[in-house]
Amino acid sequence: MEPATHLRIAQPGVMTHECSLAITAMKEHYFDDLKVGDRFESESLNVTEKQLIEFAHKFDPQMFHLSRKAAERTIFKGLVASGWHTAAMTMRLFVRTLNFAEAVIGLGVDELRWPNEVRPGDVLTVETEIIHLRPSRSRPGYGIIRLRNLTTNQRGEIVQTMLASAMVRRREQQSKG
Amino acid sequence: MEPATHLRIAQPGVMTHECSLAITAMKEHYFDDLKVGDRFESESLNVTEKQLIEFAHKFDPQMFHLSRKAAERTIFKGLVASGWHTAAMTMRLFVRTLNFAEAVIGLGVDELRWPNEVRPGDVLTVETEIIHLRPSRSRPGYGIIRLRNLTTNQRGEIVQTMLASAMVRRREQQSKG
Repeated sequence: MEPATHLRIAQPGVMTHECSLAITAMKEHYFDDLKVGDRFESESLNVTEKQLIEFAHKFDPQMFHLSRKAAERTIFKGLVASGWHTAAMTMRLFVRTLNFAEAVIGLGVDELRWPNEVRPGDVLTVETEIIHLRPSRSRPGYGIIRLRNLTTNQRGEIVQTMLASAMVRRREQQSKG
Repeated sequence: MEPATHLRIAQPGVMTHECSLAITAMKEHYFDDLKVGDRFESESLNVTEKQLIEFAHKFDPQMFHLSRKAAERTIFKGLVASGWHTAAMTMRLFVRTLNFAEAVIGLGVDELRWPNEVRPGDVLTVETEIIHLRPSRSRPGYGIIRLRNLTTNQRGEIVQTMLASAMVRRREQQSKG
């Protein structure tokens, strides 16, 4: 009933390259395809100094995000990404991994934390775990998912954690009873 | 002891233009300048269709963020900004308003919500309220602030709410006893 779904579920130790191949083949995802405890691993994303500085100029113009030289004199001893840039990159990886039919509508985020810095040259991946599922009460064609997103760098250090609630499409109501 | 601080405190009904003038004249802000209940109003920021689509291409490539035509057929009946774009624009306004000495280091965010959509042509402002203050236990030169950021559009509709914790510099320890 859910062909190829196993391709999307991250195994501990699965490398990102293998996951990228799986992701390329992914079809759309509906609320009804998910169950609590499902885990998904994203492809990977390289963080460049240029992107980091560009984001900072637009949205978070502070010394440790803007210039390598100025950043060396700050508490971070070098350039670090804005937490909001990390959040945005996480969204990119999450959206491409889960690939929801007709998109995913964010309802809210809790416990957004940045336990380690993101620096130029880092390679990020996102692991998503489904922690709660319920049909929408107000919109019959939709379901509400609660998930945990964990963003890690190439050394396995956690750079961001968050809980999120989102609304996603249900399949037409003939396959589920 | 805190000259010109009153310039930064938003009065109910103060228009954004007046605030912008105040902001231009703003000096740096330290932990010790703040007290619980202080409120600050940002200058305003125009949301353009081009910026909205550009952000979506990079970070949140979904139909209702990417194309005016495709967005008309979605639940939003038109283009809307990614919630992460709204969060990033809020950061920009917040950083410029509070203008912390040696920057503000984000520790975490809770209860991030998007109760109304942001659409092209909207004009956003951010109101910041200080809700808790304490000296840092681990870093004597810093203080931890807890704040609420409320992002509203030109009609006064709330488009984003959040609570945040951040670390900011203290003044040299001779003026506070």
